[in-house]
Amino acid sequence: MAQISLSHRLRRTPFSDGVEAAGAKAYTVYNRMRLPTLFESVEADYRHLKSHVQVWDVSCERQVELRGPDAARLMQMLTPRDLRGMLPGQCYYVPIVDETGGMLNDPVAVKLSEDRYWISIADSDLLLWVKGLANGYRLDVLVDEPDVSPLAVQGPKADDLMARLFGDRVRDIRFFRFDMFEFEGRDLAVARSGYSKQGGFEIYVEGGEIGMPLWNALFAAGEDLQVRAGCPNLIERIEGGLLSYGNDMTDDNTPHECGLGRFCNTHTAIGCIGRDALLRVAKEGPVQQIRPIAIEGDPVPPCERAWPAYVGDKRVGQVTSAAWSPDFDTNVSIGMLHLSHWDPGTALEIETPQGMRPAIVRDRFWI
Amino acid sequence: MAQISLSHRLRRTPFSDGVEAAGAKAYTVYNRMRLPTLFESVEADYRHLKSHVQVWDVSCERQVELRGPDAARLMQMLTPRDLRGMLPGQCYYVPIVDETGGMLNDPVAVKLSEDRYWISIADSDLLLWVKGLANGYRLDVLVDEPDVSPLAVQGPKADDLMARLFGDRVRDIRFFRFDMFEFEGRDLAVARSGYSKQGGFEIYVEGGEIGMPLWNALFAAGEDLQVRAGCPNLIERIEGGLLSYGNDMTDDNTPHECGLGRFCNTHTAIGCIGRDALLRVAKEGPVQQIRPIAIEGDPVPPCERAWPAYVGDKRVGQVTSAAWSPDFDTNVSIGMLHLSHWDPGTALEIETPQGMRPAIVRDRFWI
Repeated sequence: MAQISLSHRLRRTPFSDGVEAAGAKAYTVYNRMRLPTLFESVEADYRHLKSHVQVWDVSCERQVELRGPDAARLMQMLTPRDLRGMLPGQCYYVPIVDETGGMLNDPVAVKLSEDRYWISIADSDLLLWVKGLANGYRLDVLVDEPDVSPLAVQGPKADDLMARLFGDRVRDIRFFRFDMFEFEGRDLAVARSGYSKQGGFEIYVEGGEIGMPLWNALFAAGEDLQVRAGCPNLIERIEGGLLSYGNDMTDDNTPHECGLGRFCNTHTAIGCIGRDALLRVAKEGPVQQIRPIAIEGDPVPPCERAWPAYVGDKRVGQVTSAAWSPDFDTNVSIGMLHLSHWDPGTALEIETPQGMRPAIVRDRFWI
Repeated sequence: MAQISLSHRLRRTPFSDGVEAAGAKAYTVYNRMRLPTLFESVEADYRHLKSHVQVWDVSCERQVELRGPDAARLMQMLTPRDLRGMLPGQCYYVPIVDETGGMLNDPVAVKLSEDRYWISIADSDLLLWVKGLANGYRLDVLVDEPDVSPLAVQGPKADDLMARLFGDRVRDIRFFRFDMFEFEGRDLAVARSGYSKQGGFEIYVEGGEIGMPLWNALFAAGEDLQVRAGCPNLIERIEGGLLSYGNDMTDDNTPHECGLGRFCNTHTAIGCIGRDALLRVAKEGPVQQIRPIAIEGDPVPPCERAWPAYVGDKRVGQVTSAAWSPDFDTNVSIGMLHLSHWDPGTALEIETPQGMRPAIVRDRFWI
C-alpha cells in the first residue's frame, strides 16, 4: 500500500490530535480533508463497530450554510425532494442535482430554522455550486462554510455513551431528527444519524476549539463500554447499502439510477433546477441502477477502480465498492447494472484484479 | 507516515498504470484524483529534475471547458485579469475570485479559439462555481469537464526529449503559448508551461486511451536522456516560489495577498464578479502578503499544518510550505506575513513541530 503525503492542503480537523493518538494507520481525503480509514484492521474495526461503540472524526462532512430570506428558496432549487413539509429540527437526505439531473452530491440537509440550513456534504465542493447559483440568481442569502465539524458516535452502545455525556434526553431523539444539547457551556446540535447501520448520533461541533475536549470526554465516559476511535467501515457500509458519492455514483448519474427515486418528488418540487430534466426519468424509470451484488469465491481486494460486469461477452455494468464480509461469508458489493440484467438472481461475471469471478444480483442489501 | 486508502473515488488517471510501474511510493489527492508525490526520495527526485528530464502525471489538473457564444464573457466574469488581449494559442495564469474577491482557484486558462477555453485548475471544484454562474446568469455556454489529462515533461532536457517525439518545431513554442502536435493521428495541444522552474512542457492529452501509448513513447525516446517518472517537487517548487492553492492560499485570501496583484487589472476587467470587492485592496494594497522565508537550523519536517510566525510575542503570520534545500543550504519556505513584518531582512521565529526556529524574510524566492 502506498503512503499518503500529508500537507496543509489536506486539512487537519479539530479531532486530528485524537485520531493520531489513537493510532490511525491509513487515511483517505474527503472534501480536501483527512478522513481516517483504518485503526486496527478493516475486519477488527468492523467487529468492534458491530459490538460496542466508536467515535468517528467525520469533520470532512463539511457544512454548507444557507442563511437569509431566500435560504428556503435556494435549498429547494438544489434538490428534487419536496421540502415544503420539512420542519426545523429535521434532517433530510437530499439528492442534489444540476440542470441535467446529474447528481452533484448526496448530503443530509439540516433545517436549523425557517431561514437557516446546514447541508452536510459528501465529497464534492458543493459550496461552489450553491454560491454560484446564489450569485447568478441574485438571491438574498448568505452561503458559506462555517466552523462546524461533525463527530459521529456509532454502534450498539452509542445511546448509552451519549446519555452519560448529554443526559437521558438524548435517547429520545428520533431517527433523522436533532435536538440541542449543552457541552461546556456551548449548545450543540445532536442528530440521530450516521454512516453506519449500527445506530448512533452525529454531533455538529460548532467551534473547533471544543473538538478535543469533547473527544476526550467521550472516551473518558465510555471506557467500560469499550469505546474506541473508528471510522466509516467499508464492509459494514456495503452490507448496509450505504452509497458513497464518487465511488458508487457521480455527476453522470441521476438520483433514480442511484435508487434514490423515493427521495425525488419531481412533480411537486417546484423551483428545483434539475426538475425538468428528471421528469422523463421519473416517469419512465432509469435504464441502469444501483444493485447489491454478491461476488463468489475468496476475498476480493479493495475496489480501487471500477470492475466491469459481464453476462457472457456483453458488458452490463460495473462494480464500484466491494469487500469480504465475515458475517455473510461472501464478498458484498455495490454495482450499477443495466436494466436488462439487474433482476435479482441474475448471474454475472465480474472482472476483478484476480480475474473473472461469478456473481449474483441480490434483491436487497445485507442489513 | 500513514498509508493512503485507494478507492474508485480517488480517481485513477490515464497514466496510473505507468506511475505504478515506475514505483510511486506516495500520493496526495488533488481534485479527487491521484497525484504521485514521491518516487525515489524527495531529494533524489529533486536532483534528477534539475539535471535531466521527468515525465509527470498531472492529470489532476482537470480542465473546465467553456464553449459557446458566451464563453469569453463567462471567462472574464471569473477573473480580475483583463482578458481582452488574450489570443487563441495563449495561456494565461488567472486568479479566480468570488464576489468578495476571495481566491477560488489559481489556474492556467488556455484559449483554444474565440469561443472555447480550457481552465487547467488547481485543487478546488471550480467546475461547480462556473456551472452555477452559467446557470444563474442564463449564459449561452456549455460548461463541463472534458476527457483531457495533462502530462508534463519537465527538466533541462525537456526540449530534447519532446523534439524527438514531436519534431523540432516543439522548440519554437514560447513560454505560456501552445501549439498543436500530432501523436498517433491525434492532435494534441502542447504548451510551454509547468509547475517547475526547470523548463518544459505540458501536453493536454485528449482521450484517455492514448495516455499510456504517449507515456511509453516518451520513455522509449528518452532512455539516454535519463528520463524517468517524476512529480511536482516540494523543494524545487518552494525554491521557485510556485504557490500551491490550498496550502499557501485559500478562499480567505485576495490575489493581492498572494502576490498576484500583477495579474489583476481591476480597473479594466469589466464584468469580473469580484471586481468591486477588489477595487479597494488594489488601491490601498493588502495588509498581509506571501513572502519567501528562510528558516535556519536543521532540516524541518513537511509542513502538514500551518506554522505560526512570531516577532517576540506577537503573531505576525504563518508558514504553510517548507522543505530543506540542498542547493541553498537552508530551509526554504513560503509564508503569509502581516505588512508590519514583511520587509526583507525581518527576523522571525517560526513555531515548527521541532520547536521555535529563527527565520529571515527574503526579498525574493531562490530561483
